[in-house]
Amino acid sequence: MRTFEENLERLAELGIRVGLNLQPHQEVIATAPLEAVDFVRLLAKKAYEAGASLFTVLYSDNVLARERLSRVAPEDLDRAPAWLYEGMGRAFREGAARLAVSGNDPKALAGLDPERIGRAQKAQAQAYEPALKAITEFATNWSIVPFAHPGWARAVFPELPEKEAVERLWAAIFQATRVLEEDPVAAWREHNRRLHEKVAYLNARRFHALHFRGPGTDLTVGLAEGHLWQGGATEAQNGVVCNPNLPTEEVFTAPHRARVEGVVRASRPLALGGELVEGIWARFQDGVAVEVGAEKNAELLLKALETDEGARRLGEVALVPADNPIAKTGLVFFDTLFDENAASHLAFGQAYAENLEGHPTGEELLRRGANRSLIHIDWMIGSEEVDVDGLYEDGTRVPLMRKGVWVV
Amino acid sequence: MRTFEENLERLAELGIRVGLNLQPHQEVIATAPLEAVDFVRLLAKKAYEAGASLFTVLYSDNVLARERLSRVAPEDLDRAPAWLYEGMGRAFREGAARLAVSGNDPKALAGLDPERIGRAQKAQAQAYEPALKAITEFATNWSIVPFAHPGWARAVFPELPEKEAVERLWAAIFQATRVLEEDPVAAWREHNRRLHEKVAYLNARRFHALHFRGPGTDLTVGLAEGHLWQGGATEAQNGVVCNPNLPTEEVFTAPHRARVEGVVRASRPLALGGELVEGIWARFQDGVAVEVGAEKNAELLLKALETDEGARRLGEVALVPADNPIAKTGLVFFDTLFDENAASHLAFGQAYAENLEGHPTGEELLRRGANRSLIHIDWMIGSEEVDVDGLYEDGTRVPLMRKGVWVV
Ligand SMILES: [Zn+2]
Ligand SMILES: [Zn+2]
Ligand SMILES: [Zn+2]
Ligand SMILES: [Zn+2]
Repeated sequence: MRTFEENLERLAELGIRVGLNLQPHQEVIATAPLEAVDFVRLLAKKAYEAGASLFTVLYSDNVLARERLSRVAPEDLDRAPAWLYEGMGRAFREGAARLAVSGNDPKALAGLDPERIGRAQKAQAQAYEPALKAITEFATNWSIVPFAHPGWARAVFPELPEKEAVERLWAAIFQATRVLEEDPVAAWREHNRRLHEKVAYLNARRFHALHFRGPGTDLTVGLAEGHLWQGGATEAQNGVVCNPNLPTEEVFTAPHRARVEGVVRASRPLALGGELVEGIWARFQDGVAVEVGAEKNAELLLKALETDEGARRLGEVALVPADNPIAKTGLVFFDTLFDENAASHLAFGQAYAENLEGHPTGEELLRRGANRSLIHIDWMIGSEEVDVDGLYEDGTRVPLMRKGVWVV
Repeated sequence: MRTFEENLERLAELGIRVGLNLQPHQEVIATAPLEAVDFVRLLAKKAYEAGASLFTVLYSDNVLARERLSRVAPEDLDRAPAWLYEGMGRAFREGAARLAVSGNDPKALAGLDPERIGRAQKAQAQAYEPALKAITEFATNWSIVPFAHPGWARAVFPELPEKEAVERLWAAIFQATRVLEEDPVAAWREHNRRLHEKVAYLNARRFHALHFRGPGTDLTVGLAEGHLWQGGATEAQNGVVCNPNLPTEEVFTAPHRARVEGVVRASRPLALGGELVEGIWARFQDGVAVEVGAEKNAELLLKALETDEGARRLGEVALVPADNPIAKTGLVFFDTLFDENAASHLAFGQAYAENLEGHPTGEELLRRGANRSLIHIDWMIGSEEVDVDGLYEDGTRVPLMRKGVWVV
C-alpha cells in the first residue's frame, strides 16, 4: 500500500510520461485552477525531470471570474484575452506541449445571471478558438490531468467535511487513472492496447450507423463518411504518441451531422455553467436535436445550444463499457472528463478532425458530413441498461454492447 | 486610525485610480508573484469597480524558477515564452493597461549558478522586449504597485519573525505611498502637482550643470544637450495620465556623459545582489568615475562597473527632497523603486530616452552627450546635509536645495 504522497507523485509522473509523453527539450504550457499550485509544482518537477525546457503555467481564479461576471458592463462581457489564446495556439503549433490540470468547483459560478455567463462564455470560446483548433487538430501532444479541487470534492461528497472529501476524491482519481496498479505505466500500456484493439475492430467494420436502445432511448446515430474511430493513445502531428485524457475509457468517432434519428435519454447529469443539468432528453430529426429538455437546469443547456447552427447537431459518439474503473467507483463525479468516461456518450457541437480520414478541418469537415460549432458538450447516454448495435448500410446489424458491456 | 484591511484597500484603489488611472471598459493585464494572490484579488475588485472589462493576471513562481534553473539542459536556458510576451506587447498597443505587482524575495535564486541565471535572464529579457518596448514607449497607461512579499520583508527586517516583518513592511509601504493620508487620491493629486511644478521650473531654466555640496561631496554634474526633466504622472500615448511608479518622489534628467567633475559620498547604502554596499564614494573626471570605493561590499559595485565603457559614467541625476515619506521610514528597502525615491541620486549606466528632447535612442543618445550602458544602478547621494545649485553656462548659480529641501 503506497502513501498518498507516493500516489500523487505517480499521478504527476503518469501525466508527464504517459499523458503528455513529454519529449526532451520540449516546452510545456499548463493551465490550472489556482487551488492546484502544489500539484502544478509537482507536475513541473516531473516535467523538468523528463527534460522539459520551460514549464509555463496560467492559473484561473474563480474569485476573479465571479467578480467580473457580477460587475462588468454587459458589452464588456464580450471581451476575452484573444492575445493570450492566439499566442498559445502559435506556441502549440511551434512544438509546445499542452497540459491542462482539470478539476474545478461546479458551483463556482452558482447564483450568477445565466445570460451573462452565456455571453461571457461565448466570447471566451471565440477567443480561445486558435488554441482549441491547435489542440483538436493534435498539432502537438497534449493531456488533461485531474486534480482534486476542494469545490469538486464538496460536490462529489456533499455529506463529508471538506478535508475528508478531498482525500476521498483523490482516492477515486487514483483508482480511475490506474495509479493504484502495481505498475501504472505498464497498466496504461495494456489499457491502450485493448482500446486500440476495439478501434481497429470498428474501423475495419465501417458501420453506416450505431443504434442505441435502452430506457427512454431508441436512437440511430449515422456515422460521417470516412469516419475514423479513435481511442487511447494518439499520435499527434509532431509525431509524439500521447494520452490526451487521464482517465480515458472511450472509443469515439464522428457522427454524420444530418443522419441522427430518434429519441435519447441521458444516463448521467451534465455539469454546465456551474450547475448540474439533470435528466436530459432529446429528439433528433435529420441530425438536429429538434426537441431538447431536462428535468433540472434545462435552460443552461438550451442557451449553449443557441451558440450557432452546429450546436444542436452531434460532433462525437463514444462507446464506453459500463464495467470500467470509473463506473466501478460508484460515484457521480460531476465532471465531464470522468463522467463521460464512465458511460457511452454523445457530444453536441464540434467534431474532431482526428475522427475523419485525412484529418480535414473547416469547410471540409462539413463536406464529409461531420459537424462544426464553437461548442463541444459531452453528455452521457450509456449504462448497464443500454444495448448498442452496429448497422451496415443494408440494415444488417452487429451486436456491439449488451447491458452496457462489449460483446465483440 | 484605519485598520490594516482599510489601508490595503486604499493602496489597491490608489494603484487602480491613480497608478493606472484605469479607464471605463479598459482591459488590465497584471503580473504578480504567486504569494500576492489575495492582494491581486483586491486589485481586480477595485479594477472592476472602476469599470474594467477584463482583468487577466499572470503569476510568477520562484519554486518553478528554481526548479528550472537547477535542472534544465544548458541550451534550454535560452528558451523563454516569446509567444506570451509578444501577445502582451500587442495587447498593450491595442489598449490594455499594464499593472505590475512588485515585491519579491531578493534571495529567491540564492545558491544557484550565477552563469545559468545570467543565461536564462538574457533569454528572458530578449523574449520580453516586445512587451517592454510597449511599456517604455508608454504605448498604454501602466503602473507598478508594491506588495509586501514575505521574502522581501525578511530582507528588510532580518531580526523579526516573518509575520511581524510582513506587517512592518506593509506599514512602511502605506507610509511611502501616502496611503495613510486623510485622502490618498487627493494627496497624490497635490504631490503630482508639486512634482510637475519642479519639472516645469527646471526645464524652463535649462541649467548647464548641477552642483552638489555636502560632507564628502563637491560634485558638478553637467547636463546633456536638450535634456528634459521628468517626474510624477505621465501622459501615455493613449492619452491616459498615469503614475508608473508608486511610490515616486523624484524629478530626474540625463547628465552629460563627459562633464561630471569632483568627489561625492553616498548618503545611504545601496542594495545590490541581495547585499548592502555601504559608504560608497567616487571621484569623477571628464564624466568618468576614475576612483570608486566603499566601506563594505565594494567589490559588488566594482564588478558591475566593469560591464562596459558606459558603466562608470552617469545615466541619470535625480533630485528628491530629504523630507519625503520614504526617507522618513528610516529603512533600507532592498528595492530600487523605494530606495532611489528616498534621496537625491545618481545612476551609473544607461540614460532614459524620455530625458532628452525627441526621445532619441541608440547612437543618438551618445551624440546628445547622454550615456549608454547595459547597467543602470541608482545610488543615493542626497540628505539633510546636502545643498544643490543649478549652474548656468556662464557660471551663475541658482540655489535649488538647501539642507536637502527645495528652496525654489
Ligand atoms: Zn468523448
Ligand atoms: Zn467529447
Ligand atoms: Zn531615479
Ligand atoms: Zn534610475
